[in-house]
Amino acid sequence: MKDIVAYNDIHADHWSRAAAIRTLTLDAVAAANSGHSGMPMGMADVATVLFEKHLKFDAKSPDWFDRDRFILSAGHGSMLLYALLHLTGYEDMTLEQVKNFRQLGAITAGHPEYGHAKGIEVTTGPLGQGIATSVGFAIAEESLRARWGRKVVDHHTYVIAGDGCLMEGVSQEAIAMAGHMKLGRLIVLWDDNGITIDGKVEISDSTEQKLRFKASGWEVIEIDGHDPEAIDAALTRAKASKRPSMIACKTHIALGSSAQDTSKGHGALTDAQLITDTKAAYRWVNGPFEIPAEIKQQWEAIGTRGAADREAWEARVADLSERKQAELARIIAGEPPKKLAATIRALKKQVAETQPKVATRKASEMVLEVVNPVMTETIGGSADLTGSNNTKTADMGVFSPEDRKGRYIHYGIREHGMAAAMNGIALHGGTYPYGGTFMCFTDYARPAMRLSALMGVGVGYVMTHDSIGLGEDGPTHQPVEHLAMLRATPNTLVFRPADVTETAEAWEIALTAKDRPSVLALSRQNLPTVRTEFKTKNLTAQGAYVLAEAEGKRQVILMASGSEVEIAMAARAALQEKGIGTRVVSVPCMELFRQQDEAYRRRVLPAGPVRVAVEAAVRQPWDAFLLGERGREQKAAFVGMDSFGASAPAEVLYEHFGITAAKVAEAAEALL
Amino acid sequence: MKDIVAYNDIHADHWSRAAAIRTLTLDAVAAANSGHSGMPMGMADVATVLFEKHLKFDAKSPDWFDRDRFILSAGHGSMLLYALLHLTGYEDMTLEQVKNFRQLGAITAGHPEYGHAKGIEVTTGPLGQGIATSVGFAIAEESLRARWGRKVVDHHTYVIAGDGCLMEGVSQEAIAMAGHMKLGRLIVLWDDNGITIDGKVEISDSTEQKLRFKASGWEVIEIDGHDPEAIDAALTRAKASKRPSMIACKTHIALGSSAQDTSKGHGALTDAQLITDTKAAYRWVNGPFEIPAEIKQQWEAIGTRGAADREAWEARVADLSERKQAELARIIAGEPPKKLAATIRALKKQVAETQPKVATRKASEMVLEVVNPVMTETIGGSADLTGSNNTKTADMGVFSPEDRKGRYIHYGIREHGMAAAMNGIALHGGTYPYGGTFMCFTDYARPAMRLSALMGVGVGYVMTHDSIGLGEDGPTHQPVEHLAMLRATPNTLVFRPADVTETAEAWEIALTAKDRPSVLALSRQNLPTVRTEFKTKNLTAQGAYVLAEAEGKRQVILMASGSEVEIAMAARAALQEKGIGTRVVSVPCMELFRQQDEAYRRRVLPAGPVRVAVEAAVRQPWDAFLLGERGREQKAAFVGMDSFGASAPAEVLYEHFGITAAKVAEAAEALL
Repeated sequence: MKDIVAYNDIHADHWSRAAAIRTLTLDAVAAANSGHSGMPMGMADVATVLFEKHLKFDAKSPDWFDRDRFILSAGHGSMLLYALLHLTGYEDMTLEQVKNFRQLGAITAGHPEYGHAKGIEVTTGPLGQGIATSVGFAIAEESLRARWGRKVVDHHTYVIAGDGCLMEGVSQEAIAMAGHMKLGRLIVLWDDNGITIDGKVEISDSTEQKLRFKASGWEVIEIDGHDPEAIDAALTRAKASKRPSMIACKTHIALGSSAQDTSKGHGALTDAQLITDTKAAYRWVNGPFEIPAEIKQQWEAIGTRGAADREAWEARVADLSERKQAELARIIAGEPPKKLAATIRALKKQVAETQPKVATRKASEMVLEVVNPVMTETIGGSADLTGSNNTKTADMGVFSPEDRKGRYIHYGIREHGMAAAMNGIALHGGTYPYGGTFMCFTDYARPAMRLSALMGVGVGYVMTHDSIGLGEDGPTHQPVEHLAMLRATPNTLVFRPADVTETAEAWEIALTAKDRPSVLALSRQNLPTVRTEFKTKNLTAQGAYVLAEAEGKRQVILMASGSEVEIAMAARAALQEKGIGTRVVSVPCMELFRQQDEAYRRRVLPAGPVRVAVEAAVRQPWDAFLLGERGREQKAAFVGMDSFGASAPAEVLYEHFGITAAKVAEAAEALL
Repeated sequence: MKDIVAYNDIHADHWSRAAAIRTLTLDAVAAANSGHSGMPMGMADVATVLFEKHLKFDAKSPDWFDRDRFILSAGHGSMLLYALLHLTGYEDMTLEQVKNFRQLGAITAGHPEYGHAKGIEVTTGPLGQGIATSVGFAIAEESLRARWGRKVVDHHTYVIAGDGCLMEGVSQEAIAMAGHMKLGRLIVLWDDNGITIDGKVEISDSTEQKLRFKASGWEVIEIDGHDPEAIDAALTRAKASKRPSMIACKTHIALGSSAQDTSKGHGALTDAQLITDTKAAYRWVNGPFEIPAEIKQQWEAIGTRGAADREAWEARVADLSERKQAELARIIAGEPPKKLAATIRALKKQVAETQPKVATRKASEMVLEVVNPVMTETIGGSADLTGSNNTKTADMGVFSPEDRKGRYIHYGIREHGMAAAMNGIALHGGTYPYGGTFMCFTDYARPAMRLSALMGVGVGYVMTHDSIGLGEDGPTHQPVEHLAMLRATPNTLVFRPADVTETAEAWEIALTAKDRPSVLALSRQNLPTVRTEFKTKNLTAQGAYVLAEAEGKRQVILMASGSEVEIAMAARAALQEKGIGTRVVSVPCMELFRQQDEAYRRRVLPAGPVRVAVEAAVRQPWDAFLLGERGREQKAAFVGMDSFGASAPAEVLYEHFGITAAKVAEAAEALL
């Protein structure tokens, strides 16, 4: 407490600005009767200096493309961000919103939610995600700076991360990637307060964090996180570094309260006496949510500090050729190039002529080979499975400290870090990221993939080896439940294309989807062309469609996706041979099928015929389609997996698990 | 190549033993025409010295409880393990099995599968899992040694890990935990070969691994991984360390072949000429799969080297009191104590009398409070949410370097590392691990939880805050799709109990399940006692049961789990008031319900009445029960979530998302 008084005396202006953050936090948490007070109270000094002297932004023009990005990885301290946005004058962050902290409909959610308010660059809260996502922001900045020049792109990415962020494994992936790629514009401020929910950090961790960052090639600086001059000097030094920087800020959680330096201080401080005493320690004499005009003015001046810079940038952009200006506007808006549709169409046409038999992972490569040259904002990559995921196309170049224009990233064996970085690349804007791994390892990437969906970010997940068709690597590498998991996740497009045509259509939708992620589940094994006739229309956009109509009376409808469409077609042939009229419905994307109107859905899946679905995965997502619209009676069966896979050649496994045309036909006949 | 000849000359015996591993690998991979040759070829020297001079084991008694554990974290190099097991004389690992590498039904799967063969301590392949699981093995050893003394438990855990393992984030969680806990019996051999699938490690990583381990408090040793004397000396030094040890073994992947030190060497070397040339470099003159008798004898002598130790251990155990012997046998067999059933019953009886209204996370704590004293082999923990998960009971003590008898682990903010460690604790034997986090963060733990299911390990996941009932923390912390994800995973028991009674019953099943993991999805919010009458029988074991029968003609069946059972009961009351006979079926565990015979399932869910399921999560897993047995017509509806949640108080959210008794009753009436 003595320290606070001393700081107050030495840096009076700074301290009253910081106190505004601290008291808004206390008041908002008290009003909500929930939340996290301690972190904003501890990091207010760091944030104040960052916003006052370093962060390049203009609160009145929050979408300015060349702004610095500020990421609150320790998202539970959301009031720190809300207070900063309110104080600096972001229009949507009104005092009313702050007062409604954590209430329904307010933009001030418990954790910062991307899209709720300007200035929230990324959704954080699940620990480690912010720091991992920030790597993507820094990659995008480097990449775009290399391509557009410093006149157009020239900014930093700042992150506040806590002990929780650094304990999560994904932080190691992020730290290693950033160090390896020498992302010098990335600056992480570590809130080194020594406290977690369970108690002191020392009960669960003894890591020398500074040494750990050094081991990954980072610049490491250590300061008193309550000393504004030290904070300023450290930020200046970090900005000058060619390597990413970590500033270890020694802070006191819940500074100035009786809960200071305790795990109690980590949570919601709502006791009235505690709040009164704490405000007194800050020499804060104003009522709840009251910010003296003078202090608000100081903050608002900080908020518009970047206006001149922003105007100069706008002038520089206006100096670009019209073509370049249009191109910049397009990629910032996340619009695909006009040529995309024609490119996809041309490929579909060619494929209808040649009818190739290739794996859909290869099909995906064929698509990317024609897309990447016309859509130069793509940034591809793989978590060390480049040759298996088929994600690298000719002339992409490899992104590295030596080649910032390279458009391919070797993410290493870091599926989780890759997915988080992809989120960051997309959120930064001006780029479209896609990345690959084995479908089974969506498990590793899962927390970041969920955030793609929750934030509504257009990224492309290239998940190959999507079933027991993977073969000999065995059950650890064979997805069984992953399609169900992804389809259960809101706001996610899960594509499982059956051939090159469907793969091209899926990619067209993915590359055009600005507000949700796409997962392409792709086969390892070769698949025949099942859509043999060229159609201009993107049939995959309907989610499911009639691939082959019944001849004669329609008695059976077979539904399938991906590699099992071939099996369904063979089963149809067998059934038709017996005079049993059989329709095959290809289901490349259940989510899009659900979005079709009822008339279409009933046309594709009319009541009456027996239904058999076949997919080399668990049944769960298919039940809805076996049930039929409005619960109308349907005799139905499913041919697929109800256990983990096994290690053997793919064709042996399909036979072993009974996922064959004969079994499908048998299941249909048994229902007739 | 020159090196090899030189080594051959200096250490002729060692080199022919190691060559046996290398050539078996070459032959098995060639026969399978798939697999990974390079890693076993590179690490054969390290493994040979480890097995020859350090690993405490008896190939003829592979289940010996006090054996050292050997974990191949780089599981793609499975032939290294299979070769070692075959050569040292493990009975089930016949030459025939090695010849059938990666074939259906063989115990020699693409990646080592726990349960396939003795000597496979854990399923590996998904990178990083082995090293993370090994932390659990080392915890179990320390814990049991403290409780039983060195005469009964006194062994080491050895791990071979590759670059991929170290790049995965979970390795950081593991390294930090092991260093913090000072697990001196844990020794990691890093296969430092500088190669990944995409190329040289340097294209994706520049981490100074040795510094990174040091930052976490490890002993670090660096050696030439082909020098048997250096390997021996390093292992001796590591065994003497009080801290966990990492031995960086500089090796050549695919040693001696033309693919040495390349990413090609990482994969399957199947070219006949390459194999011939490589064998020549090894001075190996035998045919495929041929091991000269002399070399096999040397290896078999290594295999029985530990027999005397094992016999001495058996004698020491026989010296224990009868009570202690019985207790040791019980915990090794993983049998719960006889008292467990009576303990659960007593709690149920008490609860029926007091009818408490508590959150099921609190209910779980009530169960653990009575279970932990009678089942002293439990090891509890939480990923820094102890007070929220309610996982710590009185008198457990905290496991630490100072208190090895402590039975509670502060895992830190490391859900993934926790889950992997729990797998290791369980696999070691003699202990039952449970651990908690928020249900939403099953995402982080997912790769290890999948392995729990794949291996069939009895562990308990305490996943609290299991829905939007979590409230203000918002959608990042509110599970919506997670029940679907877990229920889609084979061999996993997912419990969502509705009150203290069901929670007690779920725990009884979980603690008794030796061959699969259990997930307890528990509420943050208080729930009334819905099972008001005491029943001796464990009704949760039936998966679903009639909680309240319809009065009058049965027109409606409401199905619900967990916190929504209360809502279903209120909806029933409203419907009955209108004269609509309504049954409520509580569904605490879908998996167990599926395992009941058809007669029971039809008794609980007879055809005819309309069905409404209610769960604050996505619909996907319920479709099967809404469909009804045999696809018979069912008018059905679902009340739940079809989007992510939001930040607001829980009761506001239930209202907002329409998960209320009124909406359930309305849905039922609409179907009548």
